[in-house]
Order: sequence, then C-alpha cells, then structure tokens
Amino acid sequence: MRDGERVCERYQRAAGLLGKRWTGVILKVLLGGPLRFSEIAGLVEPVSDRVLSERLKELEAEGVVERRAGGCAPARVDYALTEKGRALAPVLEAIERWSQDWIDPAPAERERE
Amino acid sequence: MRDGERVCERYQRAAGLLGKRWTGVILKVLLGGPLRFSEIAGLVEPVSDRVLSERLKELEAEGVVERRAGGCAPARVDYALTEKGRALAPVLEAIERWSQDWIDPAPAERERE
Repeated sequence: MRDGERVCERYQRAAGLLGKRWTGVILKVLLGGPLRFSEIAGLVEPVSDRVLSERLKELEAEGVVERRAGGCAPARVDYALTEKGRALAPVLEAIERWSQDWIDPAPAERERE
Repeated sequence: MRDGERVCERYQRAAGLLGKRWTGVILKVLLGGPLRFSEIAGLVEPVSDRVLSERLKELEAEGVVERRAGGCAPARVDYALTEKGRALAPVLEAIERWSQDWIDPAPAERERE
C-alpha cells in the first residue's frame, strides 16, 4: 500500500471492532446517552448478557465506552460513550446509509417476519 | 430496537463484510479502477493468494466486486467494483478518518517499524 501499513492496521482495528456482532447497535443506543447494563440489554435484545458484557469490555478497552459508577448505594453503574466513541457517529451513519441502500434483508430474516 | 431488527441485520451484513481482514484495503485499491488478481495481490501484500481469492469471492457474492474476463487469449481477467461497491467510498473514508484521528498504532506494528 502506498499509504503504508500503518493506515491499514488502524483501519483494520476500527473496522474489526465495528464489524463484531452487536457492536454497531450497542454504539447506536449509547449515542442517545448513558445507559445501565439492563437498559442496553433491553434495547439490544436478543443479545445475551454474556455477549453484551464481552462487547462492552472490548469497547471499554478500546476507549470508546466508559463504565461509570456513582451515586449513593446501591451505586448506579452506567455506560457512556467517550469523545472517541461519539466520534463514531458519522461512521455508523455511513454504514447504515449504505446498508439501507444496498443490502437486501437476509433470507433468514424474512422467514422470521 | 426502535428501528426494527431489519436495520440491525443490514448494518451487521455491511459492517461484518467491512470488518474482515484485508477487505477494506482490497476495496480501497479497487476504487482506483479495475485490477488483475496479481496487481491486487501486489498492492495488498502481505495477503496470501488463498485469502485474497477468498475475500474477492465474498465481495463478488455480495455484489460489491465483479470478476470480468475478456479480450483475446490469454484472456485478461480483472476485478472491478460494481456501483454497489463504489458506493462504499464514503464508508471507507469515514472509517479511515476516525481510525486516523483516534487509533494509536498497535504495539505489534511499532515493533515491525
């Protein structure tokens, strides 16, 4: 690549993260504001708690989401996008726009309707 | 999801495709115009021929890339983006912009430099 491998590695880190199942929709619901684990789980169903927890940890490790504990006992723990996470909004929009214009619903999904 | 599962499924198909290793850079070199297999391999190294061939087949199956054979013997076979593939340009740009702004080079890559 003319642009050097660094560009490719960075692109891959970003696209690999966004391409994981549920990550896009998790980010999308968090763009609406901070949410508790159970609230995310409700909006992103049918994701399992185990997978949701894994995805949130990955996003936290990448600095896209932060886990915040605060307030009186029982502490309210919620998840919020960082500045880096909010900066993903145009990326999510671009993927969504393209997929709406160009992707047919998958056969498996039609059967579910 | 308020937007319904269909949006999520479509997003996932798109993001899953873009998140596969090498796919972004393959699309990027093809945005410059049609290329032969060996030309893509040269620009996308160090991808193996086996993996490159697999990625091109996936992109063909999704209607993003078309394999074109033509001309006199020996036939020149090349790969070109379809209209659907060219429509990915803003998505690739958005991912690249975000990753350049927000992703640090991976440690493994720094060692290689």
